[in-house]
Amino acid sequence: MAASATHAIVHELYDAYERRDFERVAAVIHDDIDWIIYGPVLVFPFAGPRRGRNDVLKALAAVAESYVVESYKREVIIIEGDRAAVMSDASFRQRATNRMLRFRIANFLRFQDGRLIEFREFINSFDVVEQALGHELKI
Amino acid sequence: MAASATHAIVHELYDAYERRDFERVAAVIHDDIDWIIYGPVLVFPFAGPRRGRNDVLKALAAVAESYVVESYKREVIIIEGDRAAVMSDASFRQRATNRMLRFRIANFLRFQDGRLIEFREFINSFDVVEQALGHELKI
Repeated sequence: MAASATHAIVHELYDAYERRDFERVAAVIHDDIDWIIYGPVLVFPFAGPRRGRNDVLKALAAVAESYVVESYKREVIIIEGDRAAVMSDASFRQRATNRMLRFRIANFLRFQDGRLIEFREFINSFDVVEQALGHELKI
Repeated sequence: MAASATHAIVHELYDAYERRDFERVAAVIHDDIDWIIYGPVLVFPFAGPRRGRNDVLKALAAVAESYVVESYKREVIIIEGDRAAVMSDASFRQRATNRMLRFRIANFLRFQDGRLIEFREFINSFDVVEQALGHELKI
């Protein structure tokens, strides 16, 4: 896949996610996607590895069940061939408490046949857990 | 900066870090670097923002004081113009306990005048804190 095609699909994917158009997001996800959000599943049940489009959509639905995407600003986008890396500044509102969580997100993406086939997400999970719980962790 | 030049300098930087050639690492760092490792400073005193070459070298020295880089494998490298994103599989040995910490690292880099001017590092910090402390965090 050429970088220009990757560029278009990356923006389509993030635009759709930002406006909560999950149908469009779903359309860009490959049937056989290999997906990991790195984070503790005890606090974020939607974290961890997922395989296949259906399981990824369930994870995204679980995010949406607990959090509202308030903003998701792409700060850096790096594209080479069929791969992309995206660093974003995101704010999520926790539905249960109305608390706002704000943190940076680092994504590594790979596309195949015009769809997302590999996805890795990094956050400063220690900090985001503290924000989600509303108190500092004891160390 | 062309992608080919960025490619060469990225590999030079990571090769030097992997073989612990901190003089060579230092030579590739811009005087005015803007640097953040996202993580809790209570557990990782070398984390957080740093500005300027001198402070970054002190942070790297602080990492080396507590940890030995046992392996640092680049798994994904994405380069576009003067920017790069690198995902690595790293193992660090904690000097105080000989415990091995293993985790993935996501780096976003930007180069200027052939040197690293901007650096952001993401890890699954909740998990890495647990590995560093040798016990699970209470949530």
